[in-house]
Amino acid sequence: MSRKYRVGILGATGTVGQRFVQLLEGHPQFEITALAASDRSAGKRFAEACAWKLPGTIPRSVRDIVVQPILPQLDCEIVFSSLPSSVARETEEAFARAGYPVISNSSSYRMDEDVPLLIPEINHEHLGLIETQRQKRGFGTGFIVTNPNCAVASFAPPLAALHNKFGVESAIITTMQAVSGAGYPGVPTLDIADNVMPYIAGEEPKVEIESQKILGKFVDGVIVKADFTVSAQCFRVNVIDGHTASVRVNLKQNSTLEDIVEAMRAFPNLQLHSSPDAFIEVTDEPTRPQPRLDRDNGKGMTITVGRIFPDNVFDYRFVALSHNTVRGAAGSAILNAELLIDRRII
Amino acid sequence: MSRKYRVGILGATGTVGQRFVQLLEGHPQFEITALAASDRSAGKRFAEACAWKLPGTIPRSVRDIVVQPILPQLDCEIVFSSLPSSVARETEEAFARAGYPVISNSSSYRMDEDVPLLIPEINHEHLGLIETQRQKRGFGTGFIVTNPNCAVASFAPPLAALHNKFGVESAIITTMQAVSGAGYPGVPTLDIADNVMPYIAGEEPKVEIESQKILGKFVDGVIVKADFTVSAQCFRVNVIDGHTASVRVNLKQNSTLEDIVEAMRAFPNLQLHSSPDAFIEVTDEPTRPQPRLDRDNGKGMTITVGRIFPDNVFDYRFVALSHNTVRGAAGSAILNAELLIDRRII
Amino acid sequence: MSRKYRVGILGATGTVGQRFVQLLEGHPQFEITALAASDRSAGKRFAEACAWKLPGTIPRSVRDIVVQPILPQLDCEIVFSSLPSSVARETEEAFARAGYPVISNSSSYRMDEDVPLLIPEINHEHLGLIETQRQKRGFGTGFIVTNPNCAVASFAPPLAALHNKFGVESAIITTMQAVSGAGYPGVPTLDIADNVMPYIAGEEPKVEIESQKILGKFVDGVIVKADFTVSAQCFRVNVIDGHTASVRVNLKQNSTLEDIVEAMRAFPNLQLHSSPDAFIEVTDEPTRPQPRLDRDNGKGMTITVGRIFPDNVFDYRFVALSHNTVRGAAGSAILNAELLIDRRII
Amino acid sequence: MSRKYRVGILGATGTVGQRFVQLLEGHPQFEITALAASDRSAGKRFAEACAWKLPGTIPRSVRDIVVQPILPQLDCEIVFSSLPSSVARETEEAFARAGYPVISNSSSYRMDEDVPLLIPEINHEHLGLIETQRQKRGFGTGFIVTNPNCAVASFAPPLAALHNKFGVESAIITTMQAVSGAGYPGVPTLDIADNVMPYIAGEEPKVEIESQKILGKFVDGVIVKADFTVSAQCFRVNVIDGHTASVRVNLKQNSTLEDIVEAMRAFPNLQLHSSPDAFIEVTDEPTRPQPRLDRDNGKGMTITVGRIFPDNVFDYRFVALSHNTVRGAAGSAILNAELLIDRRII
Repeated sequence: MSRKYRVGILGATGTVGQRFVQLLEGHPQFEITALAASDRSAGKRFAEACAWKLPGTIPRSVRDIVVQPILPQLDCEIVFSSLPSSVARETEEAFARAGYPVISNSSSYRMDEDVPLLIPEINHEHLGLIETQRQKRGFGTGFIVTNPNCAVASFAPPLAALHNKFGVESAIITTMQAVSGAGYPGVPTLDIADNVMPYIAGEEPKVEIESQKILGKFVDGVIVKADFTVSAQCFRVNVIDGHTASVRVNLKQNSTLEDIVEAMRAFPNLQLHSSPDAFIEVTDEPTRPQPRLDRDNGKGMTITVGRIFPDNVFDYRFVALSHNTVRGAAGSAILNAELLIDRRII
Repeated sequence: MSRKYRVGILGATGTVGQRFVQLLEGHPQFEITALAASDRSAGKRFAEACAWKLPGTIPRSVRDIVVQPILPQLDCEIVFSSLPSSVARETEEAFARAGYPVISNSSSYRMDEDVPLLIPEINHEHLGLIETQRQKRGFGTGFIVTNPNCAVASFAPPLAALHNKFGVESAIITTMQAVSGAGYPGVPTLDIADNVMPYIAGEEPKVEIESQKILGKFVDGVIVKADFTVSAQCFRVNVIDGHTASVRVNLKQNSTLEDIVEAMRAFPNLQLHSSPDAFIEVTDEPTRPQPRLDRDNGKGMTITVGRIFPDNVFDYRFVALSHNTVRGAAGSAILNAELLIDRRII
Repeated sequence: MSRKYRVGILGATGTVGQRFVQLLEGHPQFEITALAASDRSAGKRFAEACAWKLPGTIPRSVRDIVVQPILPQLDCEIVFSSLPSSVARETEEAFARAGYPVISNSSSYRMDEDVPLLIPEINHEHLGLIETQRQKRGFGTGFIVTNPNCAVASFAPPLAALHNKFGVESAIITTMQAVSGAGYPGVPTLDIADNVMPYIAGEEPKVEIESQKILGKFVDGVIVKADFTVSAQCFRVNVIDGHTASVRVNLKQNSTLEDIVEAMRAFPNLQLHSSPDAFIEVTDEPTRPQPRLDRDNGKGMTITVGRIFPDNVFDYRFVALSHNTVRGAAGSAILNAELLIDRRII
Repeated sequence: MSRKYRVGILGATGTVGQRFVQLLEGHPQFEITALAASDRSAGKRFAEACAWKLPGTIPRSVRDIVVQPILPQLDCEIVFSSLPSSVARETEEAFARAGYPVISNSSSYRMDEDVPLLIPEINHEHLGLIETQRQKRGFGTGFIVTNPNCAVASFAPPLAALHNKFGVESAIITTMQAVSGAGYPGVPTLDIADNVMPYIAGEEPKVEIESQKILGKFVDGVIVKADFTVSAQCFRVNVIDGHTASVRVNLKQNSTLEDIVEAMRAFPNLQLHSSPDAFIEVTDEPTRPQPRLDRDNGKGMTITVGRIFPDNVFDYRFVALSHNTVRGAAGSAILNAELLIDRRII
């Protein structure tokens, strides 16, 4: 058996940090050896510092780990970062410069030209950017890779399936996003009970620009972005976990409904530890996907797509759903780390 | 003081029927003299027959009215119908043939060529169809008028404002609809708590075809439909009242954002009893409209529009909201009746 | 016409502060002339400083009032206080000392021996304490009166009805409290969606001690507390407004179920402006009271009681409900002010 | 390895029936060979007949089983019954008479003197009633055992712990019950969103009588019921799964808080396949137990108890929580079957 990598979590007490802890519990390749959080938490046992909000209780293996300040001297080989974007940029760079591979869920570096924005099943060849990045930034063994915004994670996979086969010309996305995406305390009950919020700060621009990079091609050391346009209206709804995306798409080539379904079903999957049985699961049940019933498909790593139909105005419409704190955050970052090991970059 | 018209309600015990009762309480032009419902309820006092689900209790004035079977011999001059579509077609025709003006909230006749599909502020000239209808169907004094689907009621008004000024070419609509739209018992809690339903039976086609008729022109005794196309994806969300529509629109003429806002704000209002102060209220608060906060604007008769922005793919995007059982159902039907009186058709 | 009193609101931007603004809009006896809030808000127009969370928008009459710091030099004759208890004690005393009648919704002074804890219908004779208070504290024209905790407001009225007739020996209360009681941002969605919180900080002791003072007798310048004991377990549930109390009560005298109902129904009401038609409304519908349907009874000032039955272990059980930010907070304070005017104390 | 018992499920398409299917998937002792449901479903494949409402999709192993009518000729050795009480009494007797062990979750036979009402950890010696039952009813190899009402399952275990040590004199219970307890479609959203329902049909009497039998002693072939009294007020709250019980208890013997906690923690557990690590888990976190966080403790089979404190009126108070469709229904029935096998009754 291969040894386990010793990993640290930056922002360990937050909603995504807790999801990292939960998903890494019993992971065959990783062992948590460092938990870092803001000064308020540093110095306390994790069990004291963390207001655990996931079902069950804090795993025994991390309860007594003393939370460290977020400084690049953590006792670990890899860091997972779920820092708020306000501090992520500077901190993550410091960790990378100090030699740590930084697997980030923050938005800070996602659109930097030399930083991979990864959905491993879609664009693992973007790992080639790491070399560019190291040279450009003068990093040694360290580097930064990122995963997409949680809403993007729900529709980029089916979009990739269609783009590869038929070419996407434009996409119109309306998201209905879960409250866990805003962390804890996050969304006040008074804002979302018996309500819909038509606004999520900073979200629409992220959703509109990330997928072109994700679906871009790695050519001569750079990413050539995909040339479609995306429109996004983002809503918060009264759902705990699971982002739903209502999608219309115009394609460059003609295609039948069967082609569309087949393109999604046939999209190649990987064989990493956290890979779900199906990367994209297409359902033909008329009432699916639903967040409560489908967010945990593939242990939260499957994208569930349904209601694929021809559209009156665009070519096709469909509904895509993914678990926003697993596939949309911690789970994706862990998959990225598994990919990096598989490709011997770590 | 003018006398009050004696009105009956078909389907009086249902969700929309209850809203009729509530809105007609104390109305200066109407007095409820007949309540009709299914055989199970007929013969009972309304207070016994009706599982009242609106805040407060059944108004005293109707508690002791004995519920009648739904037959065209009710003691009233006008009927409001909120019958399920399964029975509405036959029943409403029978009432019209018996001489009753039928103000219907059902979907049965909405798309019939000789039946007005009214939003009074938008298309009161469609009342001209009543004459066509009487001739074609051999009605005497009776006739049928309808109001739109509750989801259509939320976005058709701003669309009309844009269509009149700039010409709508196409619209892509994603709705987030309240559970009261499904009546009672309606949506099971297990289907919507911590969830979004991506499907509402029969809804998307209705939303895609009604607005072209509503925004059509009455020419030579017929409606010439507006020539734009609409795409609709309809979702049920965990909201009690208030439908939210996420809208993208392509226009035939160029227009600035200011033009767009001005077109909505300047859309002419009527002066009927149930007319709100503002037919369309445009808000520039970034987090509005919200169902819980804005559904009762104008006592539920105002359409609130916000988040109007240029769109990446289409020309403009915005969010529209209306109260689905007031403006989207009973309130609209009552407004239709007020219009008919104002125009001396009743 | 009598003139209007000029009133100020301390903590005007909070959840209860907003409710004060809403309820005072158009009030025949009061006119808002001063709004005070924390330093962060002071100096801004109310419309800018306040994140309005009630349906509709901020009343026009207060939008442009410049928020003042919370210092006893406000341009008004009476202050309503909804300050957090952390600052209420010192601040409210300062205002009283400066000559303002302070009508407080805070918990700070509720249990002070010389401060009335008022439910006007129950214990208006406690106003006699004001004289005691002025002497003891050296106040001039100023004074402090308080209203009870929002959960107490739901069950103290029926308890008073029973205590007056039959003597209460002990009561066991389990509350299911609405999120608006925690203010804004207040309860995180992640804490209450698909959940019940078995803990509300500091609540159970308040609920256990306030009702004995409220139901006490004013004798020789002091309150002689009622001698029953109360047990309270307090839960937060996923409800926006409206606290429900599940009550068992042991009585000193035998009584029939009819006696119990009659005692509640016959409890004397007042004739103040904010007095509801019924102070206590007893319903015999088996599924009532319900927060969503009954919280607005009597414009939020009625206590609705139902499910009154003999109990297996105690004498009787019942369910009581009231609107926690109207009868349980701002509405009660306004009623207290109306009482003070009626009794010519202001 | 020992062979698997072939089991059938009566009422397989319902909420509890689905939970049976889910929990039996991969069970080492049982294999589903028959699914029975109402005439509407009989003859269809399970995947067609069942509107699956649990996360994920119908297990592959049962998708193609053809649903049978509910008649005692099913191809199985044991039946689990989740029939509605309206039909359970007659049907379950017919199955028992035909030789099937009937493990019932219905309420029909729970209080029959000769039918065990089992919580295996508490009263496995009640299995002795089976012999009585067979003789009295003339059953051959068949018999009926039952598990308690889902709300009783949440508080009976801690009550048993206290009763065994100190003697319970009386208990006052207020429940906050999840919507899944009402099946599907079950509770309409309009009844529970932003609301609490103070009434669950038939529930309070069940909760008041079952625990005395459960905690009774098996003496000379009959159950001598425990001699305490229980008062129950039962509320439905906006929670999907997980019943919360607010409990006050008077004890016959004095005891310290530490005694109380110790009695619960030390309550003996069993070693059956579905036995959780802890039968009763006592938490000292002030905000626990919570349904969303604690219902899945012990895979839904643990009772979580918290907020144990001395009470003002009774001796002690606490909050108990269990998963209503696992420990409170299907999981308990399966545990009963495991017990019957372990004791070689099956």
